Amino acid sequence: MHTVLRSASKTVVIGSDQPFCVIGERINPTGRRIFQDQLRAGDLSRIEVDVAEQVAGGAMVLDVNMGVPLVDEADLLARAVRLVQGMTDLPLCIDSSVVEALDAGLAAYEGKALVNSVTAEDERLQAILPLVKRYGAAVVALPNDEEEIPEDPARRLELARKVVDVATGRYGIAIEDIVIDPLAMPVGADTSLVMKTLETIALIKDELGVNMTLGASNVSFGMPQRHALGAAFLPMAMSAGLTSAIMDARTPQIVDAVKAADLLLGNDEWGASWISMFRARQGP
Amino acid sequence: MHTVLRSASKTVVIGSDQPFCVIGERINPTGRRIFQDQLRAGDLSRIEVDVAEQVAGGAMVLDVNMGVPLVDEADLLARAVRLVQGMTDLPLCIDSSVVEALDAGLAAYEGKALVNSVTAEDERLQAILPLVKRYGAAVVALPNDEEEIPEDPARRLELARKVVDVATGRYGIAIEDIVIDPLAMPVGADTSLVMKTLETIALIKDELGVNMTLGASNVSFGMPQRHALGAAFLPMAMSAGLTSAIMDARTPQIVDAVKAADLLLGNDEWGASWISMFRARQGP
Repeated sequence: MHTVLRSASKTVVIGSDQPFCVIGERINPTGRRIFQDQLRAGDLSRIEVDVAEQVAGGAMVLDVNMGVPLVDEADLLARAVRLVQGMTDLPLCIDSSVVEALDAGLAAYEGKALVNSVTAEDERLQAILPLVKRYGAAVVALPNDEEEIPEDPARRLELARKVVDVATGRYGIAIEDIVIDPLAMPVGADTSLVMKTLETIALIKDELGVNMTLGASNVSFGMPQRHALGAAFLPMAMSAGLTSAIMDARTPQIVDAVKAADLLLGNDEWGASWISMFRARQGP
Repeated sequence: MHTVLRSASKTVVIGSDQPFCVIGERINPTGRRIFQDQLRAGDLSRIEVDVAEQVAGGAMVLDVNMGVPLVDEADLLARAVRLVQGMTDLPLCIDSSVVEALDAGLAAYEGKALVNSVTAEDERLQAILPLVKRYGAAVVALPNDEEEIPEDPARRLELARKVVDVATGRYGIAIEDIVIDPLAMPVGADTSLVMKTLETIALIKDELGVNMTLGASNVSFGMPQRHALGAAFLPMAMSAGLTSAIMDARTPQIVDAVKAADLLLGNDEWGASWISMFRARQGP
């Protein structure tokens, strides 16, 4: 199954027979006070640095989130989308918990975006899926609802199936435009949680066959040597069926792990990307 | 299923609910001309360096191979086994293609060793399994026979099952003392070969439930950035069901990947090993 994303001039395909889709996550002021202050003052210059770093690190899609308290997020997100599209031809993932901001970001976007995100909550489905359909976008869906963020893989599958059924049946969204987030949880909270994520990935792959993405850095939250944990987690998740991750492309150890897994899983024909990455590092 | 190995004073357990068993692979003169010349001249001092490095790197079992052309391998392997057991309390994996050398190595060994290896060839089964039984050892079994080293995971399973059937049925060896090598092949030869190894691991886990080990460095043979490939491969293989590998414990990137995967797969309770490894590196 192929999820196709587009900017004005570039197409990126997410799929199990494709190189893993690295969605750069850094264009986001969450937890960054200076960046928040800059954005509040109308200074968007930091975005340019973040975009350049994610692109240089190998991001294939960029997540853009402008969730700053006390600003008009819809206006800011629309401006950020235009700015980023002026800098790079990578497709964007438009990320907000505010429906009006998603609407404004999508209206400003040229191409076919990924919307981040909807949940299995009825109210969110009703608010966000019409936007996804109207703008011809794809959407990330989280398998949690009003009641719970379930730990049980079978329950996560059930909620993922609910989103797929509603999106395809009620809103006419193509199943390949739904990207499920199997929910990556911190191993530091409970060492069984990563196994549950891996089982969820395998189940969703077998039962729904859709593409999947997740926030890779969640797994190592609160633990030392986070990069080494991320670099071990992603190959495991990829071999279980994960086809994309929202991650910081500035970390070579984790990007290398993804590229190595692409090669080992047969998605880097002749090892061409792996070998050219190595040659580029050796210099002329 | 638990494969229990012992030296005179130490027990190591291989199993899917245990930390991954790192079998240090460096005590082996293959491809090392200076080491071969030293061994031929009766100088075993290099072994001490190799043992110390593997132990320092985190090996939990040591593979000892003394395959040097034009020497009495049986005598040399027996001497090496005694020397290594005088240096470390780690259990050993006694590694030779020569039946007499395995016999001499096992006779010299104190404890319960792992024998490396038998294949599904009738002649090898008949020569090696009686030794395994007589010395109360465990054995690594490769799923190839007189005809072929099969690529097909189902055929590898079939040959693995043959070894298990013969070893348990005809020689009275306990199934938990059979460790299957699912055959790691170089991704540089054919980018579909690693997937076949991963599928074989999952099949053998489901169908036989036995422990498995493999030569981890085979996968990256002939490719650049071998450590990064090994560090991505082992977590994938571990999540599929691999419980041990014969590998070079001197490479921190790969050992870290194994320890990270232990934590992520729930085999490092509370993350105690992970955190203490990090603290040890930070120094006092």
